[in-house]
Amino acid sequence: MKIKIKTKLPGPKSLNLLKRLKKLNGSNSVPYPYFHSKEGEGCYFKDIEGNIFLDFASQIASNPLGYNHPNLSKVVERYAKRSPIKYAGQDFPVKEHLDLLEELMTITPKGMDSAFFINSGAEAVENAMKISIRNKNNVEFGVCFHGSFHGRSLAALSFVTSKQIYTKGYGLKIPSRILPFNETAGDELLKVLNQEGSSKIGFVIMEAVQGEGGYNVAKHKMIKDIRKITKQYKIPFICDEVQAGMGRTGKWWAIDNYNVKPDVMSSAKALQVAATISNKKNFPNEEGAISSTWGGGHIIDLAMGLEIIKTIKKDGLLSRNKKNGDYLRKRLVEIEENIPVISNVRGLGLMNAFDLKTVKLRNDVVVECFKNGLVLLSCGGSGIRLIPPYIVGKSEIDESLDVIKKAVEDCSVKGFKHKGNICDFMSCLKEQ
Amino acid sequence: MKIKIKTKLPGPKSLNLLKRLKKLNGSNSVPYPYFHSKEGEGCYFKDIEGNIFLDFASQIASNPLGYNHPNLSKVVERYAKRSPIKYAGQDFPVKEHLDLLEELMTITPKGMDSAFFINSGAEAVENAMKISIRNKNNVEFGVCFHGSFHGRSLAALSFVTSKQIYTKGYGLKIPSRILPFNETAGDELLKVLNQEGSSKIGFVIMEAVQGEGGYNVAKHKMIKDIRKITKQYKIPFICDEVQAGMGRTGKWWAIDNYNVKPDVMSSAKALQVAATISNKKNFPNEEGAISSTWGGGHIIDLAMGLEIIKTIKKDGLLSRNKKNGDYLRKRLVEIEENIPVISNVRGLGLMNAFDLKTVKLRNDVVVECFKNGLVLLSCGGSGIRLIPPYIVGKSEIDESLDVIKKAVEDCSVKGFKHKGNICDFMSCLKEQ
Repeated sequence: MKIKIKTKLPGPKSLNLLKRLKKLNGSNSVPYPYFHSKEGEGCYFKDIEGNIFLDFASQIASNPLGYNHPNLSKVVERYAKRSPIKYAGQDFPVKEHLDLLEELMTITPKGMDSAFFINSGAEAVENAMKISIRNKNNVEFGVCFHGSFHGRSLAALSFVTSKQIYTKGYGLKIPSRILPFNETAGDELLKVLNQEGSSKIGFVIMEAVQGEGGYNVAKHKMIKDIRKITKQYKIPFICDEVQAGMGRTGKWWAIDNYNVKPDVMSSAKALQVAATISNKKNFPNEEGAISSTWGGGHIIDLAMGLEIIKTIKKDGLLSRNKKNGDYLRKRLVEIEENIPVISNVRGLGLMNAFDLKTVKLRNDVVVECFKNGLVLLSCGGSGIRLIPPYIVGKSEIDESLDVIKKAVEDCSVKGFKHKGNICDFMSCLKEQ
Repeated sequence: MKIKIKTKLPGPKSLNLLKRLKKLNGSNSVPYPYFHSKEGEGCYFKDIEGNIFLDFASQIASNPLGYNHPNLSKVVERYAKRSPIKYAGQDFPVKEHLDLLEELMTITPKGMDSAFFINSGAEAVENAMKISIRNKNNVEFGVCFHGSFHGRSLAALSFVTSKQIYTKGYGLKIPSRILPFNETAGDELLKVLNQEGSSKIGFVIMEAVQGEGGYNVAKHKMIKDIRKITKQYKIPFICDEVQAGMGRTGKWWAIDNYNVKPDVMSSAKALQVAATISNKKNFPNEEGAISSTWGGGHIIDLAMGLEIIKTIKKDGLLSRNKKNGDYLRKRLVEIEENIPVISNVRGLGLMNAFDLKTVKLRNDVVVECFKNGLVLLSCGGSGIRLIPPYIVGKSEIDESLDVIKKAVEDCSVKGFKHKGNICDFMSCLKEQ
């Protein structure tokens, strides 16, 4: 497949559906103005109008193997003519639960020999926090970092600092302290410890590569310091691997890039189910202390997660992610040198971003790329993230960068403005 | 199909798998000691050993149409040979999202014309709380009831009072006040209002028929009083319909039995996805204030939810649930009159329970029923809940009650004790 845009965007069929969706959808989200069809191949997908797009957003890192990957389509086929597909897996066992647990244990850091499956990244974080604080009577708060995103349930949200809109107006919170996401973090944590004492601190939670906050890659010194201090004071160190984990950075887990072992990890997205991962001894040993109706029970999602891990192994996608990520960053740096409104190229493996000079320009570029068949996501203040599926190759990377380069040039022309229906659905003029 | 137990329980294949699951599963759950196979029909399912069980637990109310219902199996078949099946539905639209929204709006109470899809009952409750408290600067706590269960994320858990093990040891909480689940609740709420003022109260959250807490059916006076007071003081009244909603009580929503309209509802389980439901004006109108990666994006789950609603309508399952529930309760009352250790028969529609004299007897009976092919769940202190799929008929109800009657009689013999492997996996001797 290749990019091919044959209708105005949104196309007429999509426009009708989008209006109906907007009317009923409580989230008031502003989705990309198209609807997915079942057709697609590799990094390309077709919408219901027959337009073909190149996907460098990967369903927010949830789609590591692209569209209609033969290994995954085969999985769904196996469950055809069967119902239900959602069991209450913690109470009524299905084999798929065990199969994914056993496979997951082959890729977790040494000593992290147990996992609890739940339904979303937020729930993986909630349970990471739950097992960290359980039966510690003096816990009063948790510690997070500037730029962090850990999910949208109220407790997870109490540790989100990446964007104001996520937290604005939600008055019921779990107390938190926020550390800078830089090399002074260790010293700042020591200050909190000196002021409050260690027993009040429930956990320190961190993304080694921040997602929503802007694809910021942690410095080695920060992670070494935080690990050393949390170990010394016996404070659980939670690594949130919901977006960066499962191979995207070229290692199975972003924290693996630092030769450091956390106490607890949260995973989701590319895994297709969510998981809280730790050593067995860190989980409550009383039945019922943690559970979930659908956790470990969605037989297709569990089987998909299993097949994704196996495919990443079999096809050597970790080293491929590193190699393609290095190539993508090298090319971005070349572009950065020639286009002054582009800056701060950064990333690790296949998790990369750059900034544009203003939020308006960033938003314009996202829309312009979409019009030209490339699907991207923003991140951080004025950043754009590039998260193609792991099966991406040089030709798709080159194709995406050609679209981006041209979009940045076109949108940089003085007085540039998007027009038409698309502006009812995308952030053409608004600050996001 | 009919109940048919042909191996010891657990059977040899299951025993091996259970040991492996126990080793790796962080939840340390004590699941029913069998593994589901793909075979089943109606209320009956076959395990991997070929034993046939009668299911009166319905995957904790998540499986309203039983096993291999033709309408649902057809849905899965439609998605064979397709991947991915999980989209980031709030950002990258799929038609299934709109289809389920439009169908759901045909069964919600008048004026509840908008919904937000997420991943679990807990997340539906979290978002119900979020939209209730947003931009109310003085909110300090929420109000719930004795015996309530609203999910296991930390904020939802702050309003759970049904069983100590769910909340024990989790020190980080959202502040709550607890009302009695009886006719004095209104007066107690007024006391809180007098002491604290209305602006500190974020919401009142209630299950009209309590689930985990014991299938307790709210009295009309309580609900009328709570609705009247919350309306008067403009406090959002959240009805948690995760277990009782979607037709189980003989109406679409448990609260419909009271001719009362809440401000917000949470749904999940039988719907196959989770939903926070309210009037459009109660949702934040700023993009990004609520969202979820997988919400509105799991195309098979969304399509299954749609087909379930359509089937409930087409096959008249609401009135069938009422009729079969009435029959089940009538028969339970007859049994209660003859067996003195059984008491407190209660329920609404197809959501019914009774108590046994002691927790030990209850646990013994659950195990004994399982040995004889009937799958049940406990609830409340010493209760057993009966939640068959909606397609249940008189013959299965009679079959289940025969098993229960015999089990109660057998387990009541002085000195009764379960023996064998099964006691490693079920609560034969332990207090639950």
